[in-house]
This record gives sequence, C-alpha cells and structure tokens, in this order.
Amino acid sequence: MPKVLVPFAAGMEEMEAVIIVDVLRRAGIHVTTAGLVPGPIEASRGTKHLPDTTLSEILEDEFDMIVLPGGNKGTQNLDQDPNLLSLLKRFKAEKRKISAICAAPRVLKNHGILEPGQKFTAFPGSVSESPEYTGSRLEESGDVLTSIGPGSAFEFALRIVELLSGREKKNEVESGLQLR
Amino acid sequence: MPKVLVPFAAGMEEMEAVIIVDVLRRAGIHVTTAGLVPGPIEASRGTKHLPDTTLSEILEDEFDMIVLPGGNKGTQNLDQDPNLLSLLKRFKAEKRKISAICAAPRVLKNHGILEPGQKFTAFPGSVSESPEYTGSRLEESGDVLTSIGPGSAFEFALRIVELLSGREKKNEVESGLQLR
Repeated sequence: MPKVLVPFAAGMEEMEAVIIVDVLRRAGIHVTTAGLVPGPIEASRGTKHLPDTTLSEILEDEFDMIVLPGGNKGTQNLDQDPNLLSLLKRFKAEKRKISAICAAPRVLKNHGILEPGQKFTAFPGSVSESPEYTGSRLEESGDVLTSIGPGSAFEFALRIVELLSGREKKNEVESGLQLR
Repeated sequence: MPKVLVPFAAGMEEMEAVIIVDVLRRAGIHVTTAGLVPGPIEASRGTKHLPDTTLSEILEDEFDMIVLPGGNKGTQNLDQDPNLLSLLKRFKAEKRKISAICAAPRVLKNHGILEPGQKFTAFPGSVSESPEYTGSRLEESGDVLTSIGPGSAFEFALRIVELLSGREKKNEVESGLQLR
C-alpha cells in the first residue's frame, strides 16, 4: 500500500488539504497528516483540524510521496519549517515524489527542490515570475507534480492516485465522486 | 451579512463540509459549524475536525440557511438527532432555506421537510426510489436546494453564495478558485 505524507500547517487552504487526504484514502493509499507543531491547526478560512501526528515524530519514517497543500499563510509556515525543509531535501536526494498545490510550489522554488529549468505551476501570482512557471492546471516535471489551486484539487489528487496506484484505481475513485 | 449553519456529524463527508464552509466564508457569509455532540468530529475518511460550537448551544439563534453535508454515516447521525430535526422543522415552518448534498437529502425526505411532489437530487442510491428524485447535479424546489455529491460541492456552495449574496459575489469568489 503506498504511503503518503501530508503536512498540515496553520493557515493551510483547508479544501486542498481535505480533498487530497480524502481522495487518496478512497484509493486505499495510507495517508499520514502531520502538523508542523502539536495541537489543532486553524486553516485559512477558520476551520480547525486535528492532524494524525506531528512532523517531528515521523521524520525517520518512509513515504512514497509528500504532498503540500497550499494557502498563503500555510505556505509561509511550510517555507520556514526546518523539519519540512530537511524532509524535502531527503525526498529529492532519494528521488521520491514531491507534490504541491496552489501557493505551496513556492516552497519548492525557494529551496532548490525545483531545479533551474524545471517546469511547474502554482496559484497565479503566488511565486515570483519565473520562465519555468507554466500556469497549467497540473504540471509534471521529473519527480515533482504541481497544481494551480483549490478548483484543481480533485484533478491533482486523482493524478496522485494514478501515479501511485494505477489508472484503474484512479478511474474507480473518480467514478464515486460525481465530478461531472 | 447572511448567517448560515453547517451541522458537523461524525462520519460526515469532510470534502463536502469543508468546501461549503470555505467557499461561503470566502464570500463573507457568517458560517457557524456546530457538532451534534461536543468534541472533535471524526469524518468519513478519518480526518478530525473541531466545530465552532454544538447544535444544542445555537438552537435559539437565527440563521438564513442550514446546509447539511453528506456522507453515509454522517447522514445516519443527522437523521437521528432530535436537535437537528427540531431545527429543520422550524426552518421549514419559517420558510427559511434548507440545503443538503450527497446522502443528506435523505434526512429531508425521511422527515417530511421535502413534501410529496417536491423535486430533489442526492447521491445515486442514497435515498429510496422516489418519483421526485431527479439525479441532477443541483436541484432547487421551493426553499430546498439539493446536490449530488463531493464532485458537485463547489457548484453547490457557489449557488448558495449566489442565493444569499448575489451573482456578483458568486462570480468574484468563483474567479479565485481556479475551477477551470
């Protein structure tokens, strides 16, 4: 069973966080949500979430992918968290998959997880201008998958299901969502 | 500022609950989330949520609309909660708006909030066969708005914004979501 880590930061975009966790768990993927600090997380629109654990408790665990929800303040918090930055560097060194949506690709750009020339997308205006920014709904480049915002969160989560569990599982989960 | 009540039940579909709250708050609507019982809510895919208050504490408060998230077990819990059923009956008597998504329209059908002949939609198979079931993504009939499932939650929430705050506000919120 694939294992995915979803960090929960104060100020995260709660729709993105919850869509990612829910869709992946519908596919049978083992998802761990981990707060940057202990206790409940207050998200960007005031909803409060209790993560499964904290980042400091799972630093040595193995995961197939890390997925970063967006939100402007959530991204600021991710961008300054030493545990998260150390995890991202380990994931990159071990060629494990890294995904980020909305403002969160900024963390990957700021800390050299995205290499010069490596294409990505993000919420319009959330990352300094860069020739590698495509503005697509989903962008895949090397081991990094990025997506544009809350309204692309279902597509993003379903693409993660396809990457980790195959197209059949993705189609099965998608058909239960009533997306169109 | 319009006021909306969103009951949080154990086993609720967390994507639906969070999309509704987030999109309405983006529109400046005053949303209160209320647990059926005190304490954190474990939702259908294991995410844990801390509501703002409990239903028993806001029974006398005034709201412009009540919105029921779905989820099969969440709906079972809503269907058996005396506070919720008493609130729904008061909303119906006072001709206030009632909305429900996914499995939750079952509560409205079971307790006579939907009248015989009043059209509705819901997650396929979640409500006993009825000639009034349309299977549409959104259905509006009298003071009741219903919707089909997690994949229609953005449309559902945006239609609620339009009903309570007008088309301009709905368009403004929609443009920030990157839905297409």
